Amino acid sequence: MIIKGFSSSAVAAGIKYADRLDLGLIYSEMPAVTAGVFTTSQVKAAPVLLDQQRLKQGRSQAIVVNSGCANACTGAEGLEAALETTRMVAQSLAIPEELVLVSSTGVIGLPLNVKAIEKSMGKLIDGLDPANFEEVARAIMTTDTISKTSYRTVEIGGNEVSFMGMAKGSGMIMPNMATMLCFILTDARISFTELNKALKDAVEQSFNRITVDGDTSTNDMVLVLANGAAENPWIDNDSNPDYQVFQDTLESICAELALKIVSDGEGATKCVTIRVCGAKEDKDAEMIARTVANSNLVKTAFFGEDANWGRIIAAMGRSGVRFYPDRVDIAFGDVVLVRNGQGCGPEVEERASSILRERAFTVCIDLKDGAGCEEVHTCDFSVDYVKINADYRS
Amino acid sequence: MIIKGFSSSAVAAGIKYADRLDLGLIYSEMPAVTAGVFTTSQVKAAPVLLDQQRLKQGRSQAIVVNSGCANACTGAEGLEAALETTRMVAQSLAIPEELVLVSSTGVIGLPLNVKAIEKSMGKLIDGLDPANFEEVARAIMTTDTISKTSYRTVEIGGNEVSFMGMAKGSGMIMPNMATMLCFILTDARISFTELNKALKDAVEQSFNRITVDGDTSTNDMVLVLANGAAENPWIDNDSNPDYQVFQDTLESICAELALKIVSDGEGATKCVTIRVCGAKEDKDAEMIARTVANSNLVKTAFFGEDANWGRIIAAMGRSGVRFYPDRVDIAFGDVVLVRNGQGCGPEVEERASSILRERAFTVCIDLKDGAGCEEVHTCDFSVDYVKINADYRS
Repeated sequence: MIIKGFSSSAVAAGIKYADRLDLGLIYSEMPAVTAGVFTTSQVKAAPVLLDQQRLKQGRSQAIVVNSGCANACTGAEGLEAALETTRMVAQSLAIPEELVLVSSTGVIGLPLNVKAIEKSMGKLIDGLDPANFEEVARAIMTTDTISKTSYRTVEIGGNEVSFMGMAKGSGMIMPNMATMLCFILTDARISFTELNKALKDAVEQSFNRITVDGDTSTNDMVLVLANGAAENPWIDNDSNPDYQVFQDTLESICAELALKIVSDGEGATKCVTIRVCGAKEDKDAEMIARTVANSNLVKTAFFGEDANWGRIIAAMGRSGVRFYPDRVDIAFGDVVLVRNGQGCGPEVEERASSILRERAFTVCIDLKDGAGCEEVHTCDFSVDYVKINADYRS
Repeated sequence: MIIKGFSSSAVAAGIKYADRLDLGLIYSEMPAVTAGVFTTSQVKAAPVLLDQQRLKQGRSQAIVVNSGCANACTGAEGLEAALETTRMVAQSLAIPEELVLVSSTGVIGLPLNVKAIEKSMGKLIDGLDPANFEEVARAIMTTDTISKTSYRTVEIGGNEVSFMGMAKGSGMIMPNMATMLCFILTDARISFTELNKALKDAVEQSFNRITVDGDTSTNDMVLVLANGAAENPWIDNDSNPDYQVFQDTLESICAELALKIVSDGEGATKCVTIRVCGAKEDKDAEMIARTVANSNLVKTAFFGEDANWGRIIAAMGRSGVRFYPDRVDIAFGDVVLVRNGQGCGPEVEERASSILRERAFTVCIDLKDGAGCEEVHTCDFSVDYVKINADYRS
């Protein structure tokens, strides 16, 4: 699929491994309105610091991204390496340096191999093609086992408007945000204020609703570039129906990519939605859902396909939220195995266990204490998670 | 070792498994001043609810404890089962029912097998002996691989005063508190207010400073019984030097048992102390130490014997505490491998890796921003943790 005005390219630059796509470039023929959401960590990688600075102008025209090195905890040299990378791209594309954003993922604390990037720059620029998005999505993978993309086309004001999103992430995944990179490209015409609002709302309902291991990284970013090439009527008001179409589409892309990330969680064999309802307030429901979704004991029980609701209720108990334990119902799929805080017996548990043998399922927790409702997506916690993270240097 | 006035007993009652010690009794010839600290979970097991009620009087004379069943999430029947257990003990010992405490550990959500306890009651009472503490310590084990006890003798006001502590715990371990039971017996003569204060302070500096997996249980309790049989001068004032001796001894027992718990963490191969200094305030140091100590990615790197300081600094970054990333020093043992937020290179990292191959070591984090200092003890996170918790129904 083509997004008008955008092209991209990916090469194997040998940043960490030989013969593996590890350097990508996204380019828009015209400057694009650009919004971003970044890691909430106190420790921010050089590309995050640079992009946050550059995004104050609300515009960009290119993103250069590498895997294999996070360029985090690299001090002044790291910032200079990020700057140098954007300088090379700007010169090659003959665009202002300030319109080039940079993004990195990989090992923390190692210097970025700028020489390798420089050597590959010619090939990277030559490779620019409107049909290359999938290759860039592969170039940003680290412990990901599959590349993650999402496409949408909608009509806005009589014009066809296209969207594409790509993401990477499989470990160090917790709101806010996951250890993830996500780039969303659209030819929609939208002003900065609306783009920024739409992105923040979309991220809140998608990437901030997943967890793999409760860890957060130094490099997380979600960028959205809207270059206006679709020439739809300007979206410059969030009460405009066109804004709603835009926002819904952006959120649906983010939600698809978020679920792909959690399904590809390091070592994951199952994708589990924790839905909490009947809370006093939404934020209470969210806190309980997050605590259950992050519990190692709950997640290892999912891996063991054990309908161990005792661990779920124990995790709820330490969430910091007040609730009535003797009102709690818990269901796995459509099998209610806890009523009013007590188990429904071994026969029901056996039926619940069959739900656990599925690849994806939902755990519903009803507190029967109000109308607050939220859900969080998580994965199980397997022997392979430990193996991957004991062996891999991230 | 003997604690004057105390005797104990343990039997294999067949509560969950056959031929395994799973029921214990601790008895004091005279009522003992008693203080307790209990799980902070919203979901409290029946024995916790009952003991909290009974401890309002500040006295007890016996503890009956079982493993194999937590008697948690068992509703009114569970409370009745706990009551029935204490009733049997009170009748057999001819002491008031209100002076009998009860404690359980094991699977959540299953009914307590009171019949099995009843059948074993005669043997349990007959077995009471001053030298049986080690057997009770074995009877409270679940996934523990070793039983955990600690003994001290000190002089208070010219009298010899003895202490013994026993604990169980290896998973679901996080402040406040761990999934743990701990009973401390002493023949010291001390009033309730001082005993209660000494226990709370000791727990804060010991059991609330360890973590295995960040989970908290429904059944945690630490009880201390002081029966006064040593006939030392009453300790009834916390400015009394005798109080300090008592408090130091209690804290040293709790610290020893806490370290034994973390060393026996489920699947653990290493015991790691995370020490944070140079923070603005102690509570900031504590928050950072806890976040690092609970990070799955940090703990899997310890298991992999990888001096992956990037994961440590990433965990610090999400702790919620403000600090200067470019001031941070990190040392493994005496090897400083990060200075001012940047790595000291592969040669230093190689030396740090040799520290990681040891069974126990300390990670020192210096924020260089104040005098705040705290430490937390954790273990590594192994393939066996997942196997144990995927297979074991806790």
